[in-house]
Amino acid sequence: MNHLHPFDTACALTREAPGRYSGASPSAYWNMMGPFGGTTAATLLHAAMLEQGPAVEPVALTVNYCAALTPGAFSVNAREVRSGKSVRHVWVDLQQGDTTMANASVVFAARRDTFAHQAAPMPDVPPPEAVPALDTGKRLPWLQRYEMRFVRGAWQPQQQPYAEPQSPHSTLWVRDAPPRPLDHLSLAALCDVFIVRVFQVRGTFVPSGTVTMTAYFHATAAELAAQGSEPVLGVADAQTFGRNFGDQSAQIWSRQGRLLATSTQVCWFKE
Amino acid sequence: MNHLHPFDTACALTREAPGRYSGASPSAYWNMMGPFGGTTAATLLHAAMLEQGPAVEPVALTVNYCAALTPGAFSVNAREVRSGKSVRHVWVDLQQGDTTMANASVVFAARRDTFAHQAAPMPDVPPPEAVPALDTGKRLPWLQRYEMRFVRGAWQPQQQPYAEPQSPHSTLWVRDAPPRPLDHLSLAALCDVFIVRVFQVRGTFVPSGTVTMTAYFHATAAELAAQGSEPVLGVADAQTFGRNFGDQSAQIWSRQGRLLATSTQVCWFKE
Repeated sequence: MNHLHPFDTACALTREAPGRYSGASPSAYWNMMGPFGGTTAATLLHAAMLEQGPAVEPVALTVNYCAALTPGAFSVNAREVRSGKSVRHVWVDLQQGDTTMANASVVFAARRDTFAHQAAPMPDVPPPEAVPALDTGKRLPWLQRYEMRFVRGAWQPQQQPYAEPQSPHSTLWVRDAPPRPLDHLSLAALCDVFIVRVFQVRGTFVPSGTVTMTAYFHATAAELAAQGSEPVLGVADAQTFGRNFGDQSAQIWSRQGRLLATSTQVCWFKE
Repeated sequence: MNHLHPFDTACALTREAPGRYSGASPSAYWNMMGPFGGTTAATLLHAAMLEQGPAVEPVALTVNYCAALTPGAFSVNAREVRSGKSVRHVWVDLQQGDTTMANASVVFAARRDTFAHQAAPMPDVPPPEAVPALDTGKRLPWLQRYEMRFVRGAWQPQQQPYAEPQSPHSTLWVRDAPPRPLDHLSLAALCDVFIVRVFQVRGTFVPSGTVTMTAYFHATAAELAAQGSEPVLGVADAQTFGRNFGDQSAQIWSRQGRLLATSTQVCWFKE
């Protein structure tokens, strides 16, 4: 019997050799053309973290999505690029056969108490208990793995594009389904939990996919553990779309108003 | 005699073998502890672009700053990670001796006309002619290579930290000094032209440096060339600072209100 949370199964890696791991594409998080990009990001981060001691925390992660993962096994290689006094750079790639399907650069650091100031204000929103959960029961597998409570910008596919582009903004309370304590892996995945902004703006589905995502982590492992499995507030927006690409920015807030992560990504789209 | 613009000298690369280049740290762009990170970003992007044909444009660039470049020669290696139907992923690293000083991932694409929509509004600012240029004559070399006209958030080092953290925001008209036609290389460098936000917020200098920067390019080479050497509007902000790191986000706007690039970075700081 498997008592692991589906997210932990999705990110599970077996160490085959120093810096070399094996895993498998997670069917529980399947999206249209492959697994949810958030689990791919978390899997690459996981490999990088498995190569570190507990003294360092992930600070930044850039994941490049090179091809849609196919069902079945993959291998992951992690190697240290450079280790300074307090900052370490790691490179990771994920292969199926001889093809690189994704890669990532990760910055780790020993983080110490310093000057601290949160300049961005948390949005004023109702608590998660006051917001109904989206019914994702018959949706794509990855959507069923998240409890989503939209404060603004819930999206329903339209038959026809909107007459005028709509706002790319969404705000939602979100957590794993079933609930799972927050850590850097699930935080990395949450940075990709927002549907492609071009759907939101145009109204209709178009072929699309994230080509690169960058996430910055503003909380330590201990601070994330203290969140338990409470919902976090996700805010997504975008600035511009054109010539096959659109951007996306996101914030992940704790219920207490602490900015836990910020991220940006570029999505390819057709037509 | 050298008729090259100092920026082109800074990014100059000599091809030593397929995918292998040599260059030198640019003294004309020296910062406190090494060259201006913008020229390093542009140099890595340059190597990646030299490996491509004219059919593809750079879409995204992530640069990881692993160590401060020392004066003198460096080598740069660029290799294709994956080439799909319209999107290509390239990996670049910069070495001095046996040490990786910086690396980058670059996304290229063949960009075609599609749905287009700029959701972000350009800030309402006076034209560059109405804003005095900062006197950078006695400042660090890299600052002398830019003409900066601050609309908001010009920063002067303070003797003591501010009693309360100040806004991380800055808005300025900026271009190369002497003027140089805009291209993806100078646009990449402009994404790093904003001083470290923690100075802006605290008031005083602290040891600091960018550890990773991601830039997204929203304009093609032809669209950038059409800008000529006109000033562009740079907008920089930040969301949070703590435990040795702060973030930064930036926009680069054309005078005509077109969003040319967006970027984010993480800076390390001490104390």
